[in-house]
Parts: sequence; C-alpha cells; structure tokens
Amino acid sequence: MTQSRPDPESTRNRILDAALNVFSRKGYYDTKLDEIVAESTTSKGSIYFHFPNKEQLFLALVDQFADLLERRVTEDIAEETGMVRVRIALETVIATFSKYRRPAKILLVQAVGLGAPFESKRNAVTDRFAQMIAGYLQEAVDAGDITPVDTEVVSYAWMGAIYNVIIRWVYTGEPEPPRIMAGLLPLLLRSVGYEEGVGER
Amino acid sequence: MTQSRPDPESTRNRILDAALNVFSRKGYYDTKLDEIVAESTTSKGSIYFHFPNKEQLFLALVDQFADLLERRVTEDIAEETGMVRVRIALETVIATFSKYRRPAKILLVQAVGLGAPFESKRNAVTDRFAQMIAGYLQEAVDAGDITPVDTEVVSYAWMGAIYNVIIRWVYTGEPEPPRIMAGLLPLLLRSVGYEEGVGER
Repeated sequence: MTQSRPDPESTRNRILDAALNVFSRKGYYDTKLDEIVAESTTSKGSIYFHFPNKEQLFLALVDQFADLLERRVTEDIAEETGMVRVRIALETVIATFSKYRRPAKILLVQAVGLGAPFESKRNAVTDRFAQMIAGYLQEAVDAGDITPVDTEVVSYAWMGAIYNVIIRWVYTGEPEPPRIMAGLLPLLLRSVGYEEGVGER
Repeated sequence: MTQSRPDPESTRNRILDAALNVFSRKGYYDTKLDEIVAESTTSKGSIYFHFPNKEQLFLALVDQFADLLERRVTEDIAEETGMVRVRIALETVIATFSKYRRPAKILLVQAVGLGAPFESKRNAVTDRFAQMIAGYLQEAVDAGDITPVDTEVVSYAWMGAIYNVIIRWVYTGEPEPPRIMAGLLPLLLRSVGYEEGVGER
C-alpha cells in the first residue's frame, strides 16, 4: 500500500530540483508556484505540504546549497592542517560555486524581490563560512604557517572576493571557472603572505 | 522675482539629502515618498519635478555616491603612478565607504525590494570601479612594480572584498573603520605581491 505513494523525501527533492531550475531561470519575483508544480510533475498540494510558501521554498534552496558547500569543505579538509587546510577550503568553495552555477545564481543574484528574509539568510550563510575560514586561519597562524592577520577582516574579505568574481561570471559568463581558480586562489593565499603549495594539491 | 523661488538645484539637493536619510533608515521598500516630502520640507510636486518616481530618486542617490567616489579617487591619485596610485585608489575607496555609512548602506544593503533596475545599477557601479582599478593595475604591471596578474579577476575580487567587509560593518558595526583600513588595505596590496609603501602616504 505505502509503495504506491511516492516517498515524501524524494518528492521534496523533486520539488527542490524543479524550483532550482525555475528560480535560476526567472528569478524569485517572476517565478509562479504553478511553474514549479508543472516542472516537478507534483501537485500544488505536495508543494504546500513541504513548503508553506514560495519564500520558504526559495530559502530551502539556499540552505541546501550552503549545506552542500559545508559538507564538501569538511570532507576535503579532513586530513589537513594549517595553511594547507585553508588553501583546500578556499579551493573547494571556489570550485563548488563554479560547478553549481544555478545554486550560485540563487544565492548571489536571483533573490531580487525577496527582500529582508533573504538578506538575513545570505548574511547567515556568509557568517557561517567566514567564521569557519577565520577559525582555520587562526590555527594556521598559531601553527606558525603565516604571520598574524586580522582573521575576521580576512575571512569576510575573502568571501566577498569570491562572491563578486562569481557574480560577474554568473551575469556575463566571464571570467570562466578555470581562469577564476587560476587567478583567485593564489591571490587570496598571497594576501596573507602564503605563497607555497599553490596548485600542489 | 526669481529670487523668491528656491533655486532648483538646491531643492534637488535638499530632496536627495532627505531621501538619503529616509532610505538609509527604512530601506527602499518601506520608504514612503510622503516621508521624504516631510523631511525635505519641499512638496510632492517638487519631488516629482526632479524625480519621476521613488525608484529614480533612489537610483539618483546611488549615482551621486558613485560620482563622489570617483571624484575623490581621481583627485587623490592625480600626482601618482604605478602601484602607489593603485594603493591610493584603494585607500580612497575604503576610506570613502567608511566615512559615508549611509550612502554605503544605500548602495550595498538597503535596495532590498527594488529589484532588477537596482541590480543593473549596482553592477554598473562595480564595473566602473573595477575597470578603473584594473587599468591602474595594468599600468603598475607595465611599469614593473608588480609581476603580471589577471587584472580583471583581481579588480572584481578587490571590489567584492571591500563590499563584503563594509556590508558587515553596516549591519553589525564591526569591524570599525580604522580596523577595516588597517586589515584590508595591506591584505589587498599583498595579494598582488606588493608589500612596500603600506601606510607611507
């Protein structure tokens, strides 16, 4: 009996996938829930069962991407310490943004029309990654890999640098991801006086 | 006779000043034109004479701030060349954002609810400054002050770094402007391998 109904988790994921497609194509404001219904081949009832409104659905996409980003960083740095860990964390953040253009667009440019709830969410995501990076940086300082820096300023500056280059790419298609990685990663590392190991991974 | 009427330019400026106050306090979406009328001690008719709608008034504030920023940079670098010019341009951009918290708030955080026309405007402002900085950087490379860098990636990364640290300050009051300057300027310069001259100005 239960087999005849789709698993709620898979329905939820199907809705999120469809929402990602539609939002990244049309932006938050111009997206109608009916289009997400059509694209997900679910029903309005199913969508409302999982997400009370369009705003919650959009914010769930942001959370989904932030969780993915954090999981990748955590996996990739598991065996590392000091500035090598910082380098790999940055590399993973840049690579993940570059690989997932649609979620990057959702997080960085397509929330126009959503307003304050989205701004709070985006700030929370930025804080989460900036604080993670600041923590790694401090350990790299403590380990003597680099001379002391203002880890709070550095981590917010780095997140902003990554965001802005990715925003430009999302809007214009330039610079392309390999050029972003080749230009941005050494730039960020050199900004705290760390030169070695670039590209060694 | 004409003396009895206020000069249109001064009325326009009074409206812009009032709009800056109200928008930076309440954000774009929640601002009513009536509040700007009251704050500017002008009339709705005067406002409509100068600005066809709320959107145009808001965008005029962004232009006003971008023009101020460009004028200051242009003045401050007039006598300089090479990386010293790049350093002074960055220093002026950071100092101007830090000094003008309300316009910074307008440009970077308070446009919520305005949408696509604002995004285009903000991108245009970013492009304008990124391209200016990229030009100076290329001349510093050509002069042999620094080794070649991807000036496009660097200039967008720098603008994003400045924006994000300023956004955090606008929202939280931290880090305070002297700490921003002390942390951010050397960071940006070091990112292209330039160490000398920091704070020499």
